[in-house]
Amino acid sequence: MAPHLVQPGGRFWRQAARTLAASVRPRTWAGTPRVPRLGSPLGAAATSPWVCRGRSSTSARAPEVMLTRERYPVRRLPFSVVSGEDLAAFERIVPGRVITDPEVLEASNVDWLRTVRGDSAVLLKPRTSEEVAHILRYCHERNLAVNPQGGNTGMVGGSVPVFDEIILSTALMNQVISFHDVSGTLVCQAGCVLEELSRHVEERGFVMPLDLGAKGSCHIGGNVATNAGGLRFLRYGSLHGTVLGLEVVLADGTVLNCLSALRKDNTGYDLKQLFIGSEGTLGVITAVSILCPPKPRAVSVAFLGCPGFPEVLQTFSTCKGLLGEILSAYEFMDAECMRLVRHHLRLTSPVQESPFYVLVETSGSRAGHDAEKLNDFLEQVLHSGLVTDGTVATDHTKVKALWALRERISEALSRDGYVYKYDLSLPTERLYDLVTDLRARLGPQAKHVVGYGHLGDGNLHLNVTSEAFSPSLLGALEPYVYEWTAGQRGSVSAEHGLGFKKRDVLGYSKPPEALRLMQQLKALLDPKGILNPYKTLPSQA
Amino acid sequence: MAPHLVQPGGRFWRQAARTLAASVRPRTWAGTPRVPRLGSPLGAAATSPWVCRGRSSTSARAPEVMLTRERYPVRRLPFSVVSGEDLAAFERIVPGRVITDPEVLEASNVDWLRTVRGDSAVLLKPRTSEEVAHILRYCHERNLAVNPQGGNTGMVGGSVPVFDEIILSTALMNQVISFHDVSGTLVCQAGCVLEELSRHVEERGFVMPLDLGAKGSCHIGGNVATNAGGLRFLRYGSLHGTVLGLEVVLADGTVLNCLSALRKDNTGYDLKQLFIGSEGTLGVITAVSILCPPKPRAVSVAFLGCPGFPEVLQTFSTCKGLLGEILSAYEFMDAECMRLVRHHLRLTSPVQESPFYVLVETSGSRAGHDAEKLNDFLEQVLHSGLVTDGTVATDHTKVKALWALRERISEALSRDGYVYKYDLSLPTERLYDLVTDLRARLGPQAKHVVGYGHLGDGNLHLNVTSEAFSPSLLGALEPYVYEWTAGQRGSVSAEHGLGFKKRDVLGYSKPPEALRLMQQLKALLDPKGILNPYKTLPSQA
Repeated sequence: MAPHLVQPGGRFWRQAARTLAASVRPRTWAGTPRVPRLGSPLGAAATSPWVCRGRSSTSARAPEVMLTRERYPVRRLPFSVVSGEDLAAFERIVPGRVITDPEVLEASNVDWLRTVRGDSAVLLKPRTSEEVAHILRYCHERNLAVNPQGGNTGMVGGSVPVFDEIILSTALMNQVISFHDVSGTLVCQAGCVLEELSRHVEERGFVMPLDLGAKGSCHIGGNVATNAGGLRFLRYGSLHGTVLGLEVVLADGTVLNCLSALRKDNTGYDLKQLFIGSEGTLGVITAVSILCPPKPRAVSVAFLGCPGFPEVLQTFSTCKGLLGEILSAYEFMDAECMRLVRHHLRLTSPVQESPFYVLVETSGSRAGHDAEKLNDFLEQVLHSGLVTDGTVATDHTKVKALWALRERISEALSRDGYVYKYDLSLPTERLYDLVTDLRARLGPQAKHVVGYGHLGDGNLHLNVTSEAFSPSLLGALEPYVYEWTAGQRGSVSAEHGLGFKKRDVLGYSKPPEALRLMQQLKALLDPKGILNPYKTLPSQA
Repeated sequence: MAPHLVQPGGRFWRQAARTLAASVRPRTWAGTPRVPRLGSPLGAAATSPWVCRGRSSTSARAPEVMLTRERYPVRRLPFSVVSGEDLAAFERIVPGRVITDPEVLEASNVDWLRTVRGDSAVLLKPRTSEEVAHILRYCHERNLAVNPQGGNTGMVGGSVPVFDEIILSTALMNQVISFHDVSGTLVCQAGCVLEELSRHVEERGFVMPLDLGAKGSCHIGGNVATNAGGLRFLRYGSLHGTVLGLEVVLADGTVLNCLSALRKDNTGYDLKQLFIGSEGTLGVITAVSILCPPKPRAVSVAFLGCPGFPEVLQTFSTCKGLLGEILSAYEFMDAECMRLVRHHLRLTSPVQESPFYVLVETSGSRAGHDAEKLNDFLEQVLHSGLVTDGTVATDHTKVKALWALRERISEALSRDGYVYKYDLSLPTERLYDLVTDLRARLGPQAKHVVGYGHLGDGNLHLNVTSEAFSPSLLGALEPYVYEWTAGQRGSVSAEHGLGFKKRDVLGYSKPPEALRLMQQLKALLDPKGILNPYKTLPSQA
């Protein structure tokens, strides 16, 4: 049997059905990351952010990243400057955990995409919420700006300083506080690494309700602060639903303990929601209580070729109906994506060349049942012509290989040249129109215009490449892409947030009344504006 | 075949397994309410709130409810009093929809439990958000207090006025704005009745992510404002996760349009979350966007007898593991509940007398698969002694009959005498200890002390009955129950909210820092305090 079944037409499906039914057995669900984190997602010359974060050698090997304050038209707000006296005070609060070595600081000043760079001279590593409270009380009093930092894996420059903000790292706040074997409720400190939490709960028969390519580095506190989406969103939904409680330290050092481990609690306003997705601008999350679903016993992936985008949409409707509760992911990519992945990464397509490709994942409690459902779905979409070719995998290695085709698109793009990246939510039926539209609009100015993403969540990753950065191409893209998205009542940031780089496009997705209320909330919770300044809210007064 | 299989021991299970496997076929999932809304949940003498809401004859037939301002130690805040000029102004805003007839107003002044009664002289029935905005702008200017009202089905006196607040009804805001057949996103006005929405989306192959006994009367806006839990919570989670967007009119008449129909949107703070569960005290919800899951094709219910509470918990763990993604409800009731239901409602138990009973519901996409999973679960719990007897139903009528045993407990209690009601979240392993503890503490003072509820969500409904209201019994219950709950870090209101009746117990579940922030949010969003005053936040200054 070939590693992937690649046969055209009905014959394939009958064989696939047999193979699938024969090969599936109840087994442990692995839940390992689909992004090869030990590879080099930024090309051979770049440093892997997953591997090197925190290593002092990063700056020596990678090309220098321009200082944000020099590259962008941003002005420092009138915060105090860290003095020797301040450093001594910090040393009393977190003895031995005040980092001032510029080589060590470099990794925390630069974002992993290597697009923005702050100039902070001090990084603090508290171990407890009380230490965080003590630090913030001091900074509030002294009017010192603070940049809360988790795993520094964000996409929008939200997790590094813009000027000389003090970096407040959650790296040492990495203790699991409790796990409840019946309810699946995990309570832990904010600096726990997602992958380690996954391991912890999987050993106990549960999974984390979120999974990200960055899981080996990202912190759960950062995930919550940025309302991370990721690969399990379709199945388990938003963190606004799965996070049960938070402990947050407010700008003035007040500890707000809403670390409930209860599924239901309707006593007063649900304050924790304010901090989910606020990117560290309203408070520093120090501990998280989160509901973990039971671990699926079987996982299968089908990789399919579709003749057009309408068929991609109809295939989605069909699989929602036939796979029902076991559907756990529905991703799509266009033919350009596949060409880039083949060309730059030497990956081979497991199916015939098609205008579109779809990845369907099922996760269930009974392999045999899941296989039957999946086969029925596959037979139906092939019979009706929605799908022209496909392959199915249940073996962990093959599942990973199919996921790699989708997950490594970003890496292939970065090898293709300069990349203009957009992360948009759009009504699913218009999702791909923007890609087609842009191809016509940009013509030969762009090297490639590609679309892929979490179709099941209405989330398009639109990427445009050119040989080198081109201001005229940027001018053709922006604000056009944002205006187009706004015209569809879409979101200009589906899952990446706004951080520093996207804060000025907020107005394309939210009305002035909402912006005003956001600014009022910021003023209420952080009147001096010391928490993650220059982030989330637009720069204009 | 008997309507319910009632046979002891292993023989039953084997027969049940066969019966189940034979009887299940893919069929439409009915999703009808489990509470007999045409019955009389408050006893023969009482008026059914589901039937009579809005009828002017209510007050004529039912005993008078004491005015809240006379029964409770609450003082009117210095709002203006509605004048003839105000009525004329309202008549210009909502012509022909300004209700001042005291007979008609009665139904909106009294809560459905008939425990609190306001004294409002005017009810307004806007049809659009613009009308709501116009009304609030006027009231804000005039310092007139407003009581937003949906279906008036709340349990804590949050939905009726306390003094003479203007009642702002969403009853005529009942239009579906859009439904998206691929994503399952429903956008509608706040006054749509939940049952009508259920029908609307079920015809299109989806279900509402929430289901309540009150579905025939309650409004979706009220559901969101109170963060309603209900029967599908275990499966589809909290409204904080399923509500995609809201349109809200703020206290000063500003329309806040966050009515996104997108699954993912990380542009700025998630403002809609502020209003979910804030009981109309921060803004008036005028429209809702909500994600509907696909309609399950098959539903089964198992009703089981357990020898003790530890077995109830272990049965839950077992069914989570074996039923996995098709588990949709796990409810429990104690032997006292069954005795009350038998005695007062003449319902018969379908299983042998047991110290505890458990209701397990599955909802899936394939009846045959679901039956296999359910049978495996049942065999295992019987074999291991976790369950001593049980019955299974897949037929809609029988499913309803089994649900009635659990859902009509409240009705049976109300026929037993005066009822002291508590709705608590507790760690599941301690959930029943409070019931046992109270029985010993109260002795013959109480007629019955019973425990039942949504065990899968950690939600205990604790009820105590006595022949008539007894201050000494109340003194033995409160604050003891709240202190006991606080000692377990539980919630003193799991799903009912605080409203008017429970606002002063908020401090048992939330720390002073949280209360302070809630008060600051109220002051920010409603500086004059005109929106649903005397609700949610504690009465002390």
